[in-house]
Amino acid sequence: MLKINKNFLELEDSYLFSNIAQKVNKFKEDNPDKKVISLGIGDVVLPLSAPVIAGLESGVKDMASIETFKGYGPEQGYAFLREVLQDYYKEFSVDLDVNEIFVSDGAKSDLGNILDIFAQDNVVLIPDPVYPAYVDTNVMGGRKIIYMDSNIDNNFLALPDYNVKADLIYICSPNNPTGAVYNRDQLTKWVEYAKEMNAVILFDAAYESFIGNDEIPHSIYEIPGAKECAIEICSLSKTAGFTGLRCGYTIVPMDLRCEDVQLNKLWLRRQTTKFNGVPYVVQKAAAGVFTKEGRAKCKEVIDIYKNNANILGETLKELGITYIGGENSPYIWLKCPNNMSSWDFFDLLLEKANIVGTPGVGFGKNGEGYFRLSCFALKENVIEAAERLKKLKFN
Amino acid sequence: MLKINKNFLELEDSYLFSNIAQKVNKFKEDNPDKKVISLGIGDVVLPLSAPVIAGLESGVKDMASIETFKGYGPEQGYAFLREVLQDYYKEFSVDLDVNEIFVSDGAKSDLGNILDIFAQDNVVLIPDPVYPAYVDTNVMGGRKIIYMDSNIDNNFLALPDYNVKADLIYICSPNNPTGAVYNRDQLTKWVEYAKEMNAVILFDAAYESFIGNDEIPHSIYEIPGAKECAIEICSLSKTAGFTGLRCGYTIVPMDLRCEDVQLNKLWLRRQTTKFNGVPYVVQKAAAGVFTKEGRAKCKEVIDIYKNNANILGETLKELGITYIGGENSPYIWLKCPNNMSSWDFFDLLLEKANIVGTPGVGFGKNGEGYFRLSCFALKENVIEAAERLKKLKFN
Repeated sequence: MLKINKNFLELEDSYLFSNIAQKVNKFKEDNPDKKVISLGIGDVVLPLSAPVIAGLESGVKDMASIETFKGYGPEQGYAFLREVLQDYYKEFSVDLDVNEIFVSDGAKSDLGNILDIFAQDNVVLIPDPVYPAYVDTNVMGGRKIIYMDSNIDNNFLALPDYNVKADLIYICSPNNPTGAVYNRDQLTKWVEYAKEMNAVILFDAAYESFIGNDEIPHSIYEIPGAKECAIEICSLSKTAGFTGLRCGYTIVPMDLRCEDVQLNKLWLRRQTTKFNGVPYVVQKAAAGVFTKEGRAKCKEVIDIYKNNANILGETLKELGITYIGGENSPYIWLKCPNNMSSWDFFDLLLEKANIVGTPGVGFGKNGEGYFRLSCFALKENVIEAAERLKKLKFN
Repeated sequence: MLKINKNFLELEDSYLFSNIAQKVNKFKEDNPDKKVISLGIGDVVLPLSAPVIAGLESGVKDMASIETFKGYGPEQGYAFLREVLQDYYKEFSVDLDVNEIFVSDGAKSDLGNILDIFAQDNVVLIPDPVYPAYVDTNVMGGRKIIYMDSNIDNNFLALPDYNVKADLIYICSPNNPTGAVYNRDQLTKWVEYAKEMNAVILFDAAYESFIGNDEIPHSIYEIPGAKECAIEICSLSKTAGFTGLRCGYTIVPMDLRCEDVQLNKLWLRRQTTKFNGVPYVVQKAAAGVFTKEGRAKCKEVIDIYKNNANILGETLKELGITYIGGENSPYIWLKCPNNMSSWDFFDLLLEKANIVGTPGVGFGKNGEGYFRLSCFALKENVIEAAERLKKLKFN
């Protein structure tokens, strides 16, 4: 008799975004005249830039002609894209072999799939609050999870505790949901800890392109020794608006070994067996991101989102609401005023200002009393949201 | 200390296609004047048809404009595509709920990833010869594999043996590599067996569009009761030339339960946690496949490939070489003449006729002495290959 993977029954139903949707839909039904502004979900709103579209179009053209048609490509991505990614990392003084770079269909897939290459009996260290997929993928795999507290005492930047023994460590910087960003010294502490524990860091760099400060590493490999203890998972979703186009990349260094086995070799075997690569047209679009014009255009878009974050941040300051993030990150993580709970503040914002955000408690227990605002919105809506916020009376 | 998934160390290195590539490259170096014709790899060679390109182009246009830009889509695929797939199944008299249909980035991914929802201690029944990924994904998962012999005695169509107890059953029809096709009665026997064993059939229908005979089911769900015991995994790779564009679909019926748990619910949870959907532009292209014009154009291309198979089949008959397949399938599975081994015949074909095929033994022990020819080639090359074959002397 077939048996299911019983670990699935241990998953908590994820009601966060469906609860939000339900409340928002009810509010809209009850208030059809009100314009609701969403600063909730972390999805981009601005279209693909011209160099990315040009890449797509050239890919489509190739697929239409017998001379240039592309069938199966290399599972790990076309050389033309891996080579521009290799060049991109040189800007952070990180030298990569092209065979260390795997083109993916986005960070979410690889963050889940990478677990295939690790044993079930590893202990996993996950920050709280956190992107829920880190937790759920490990629950599915039946792994023991230890949470590390990110809270106001450590500026939502948990640091290693040598009393805690872990094998796999999740670090997301710039962080989702808090917008907190590790500096070089702090990441060095994590690399030292990982090496001491013979652990591997899964470094989620999906928001690296929001970093505007030279002191903040874009890549974990800017830290000496990281190639021996870290896998980096990145995405073009936020860098270039690829949430609907699906492309990212995962770095598994040749120097990363466990029990004398090269993890790069295991991941290559996993990908060649269970994945058939990213669509050629999407890889052409991704290459467009890294042209000179593409880089400039993508930066323009990121600057629009960062300016949104700045508008929201300044408004919160005026209101005396404390927050972190919004500087090297598209997310603002605010302390709910008057010690309100996350959901009470959600209701208040929706009802009084017709603004949708995300209750911090949805990301873990340390998120209670906090709230995430996303800057992925049109500027005019952010300005209007800011004006509405200013009219609210706190205290 | 981090531990790797040791099951990966049990994987046999897959040398088949790299060995072929090495031999072919050496031959080309030694014989730069010879034109080598490839009938080896199962990859399409004809470009995407106009309605598919039109779908892609309209998707690209949408992504370029703020009004029509698409960010994150539903993980299980856009309704517009799931609805046309629902209609497509009606042609086989199969009624599906749209929520039973999951758009995928190809059969290979889902054939591997579906195993996430099943326990490790299931017994897996796999035909030999076989598409190697069925085996490798289960070795990675640490599952016990029992092989069922497909050989000349059963026309390479293994039927259930009730002495063998299995929980997961792989069936690929039309078959890769043999081109053999199960008829309705034979599939009914498998459904009966699966129900008796409380097992689940993973039905790989990637080649269904090559079926040109009304007696042959396109979908396992044409068999009564299959919705209670089968998952169907399909692809547009061969149907519409999507090997480089990456789109398929997986059907998990609502009636399919194990231990009182709906497998549909588990798969939805798996996909929403570890997958972010297929690119919008690719889904638009896929919808183009199912327009009236798209269906006609894709059939034209399949007819070209099927005509290739016919040319090769007639040639083999002339030569007195026995074979199966090539009728409702893009593959011809021939018995190597003079009791040659698969690799001896490979060498002979390469050296004497400058034709590349695939040694049957690469697909399992029952493939020894057999050889696969793929009809995914340009017609003029197939005609030339046929002429070269005719000049070879066997016996």
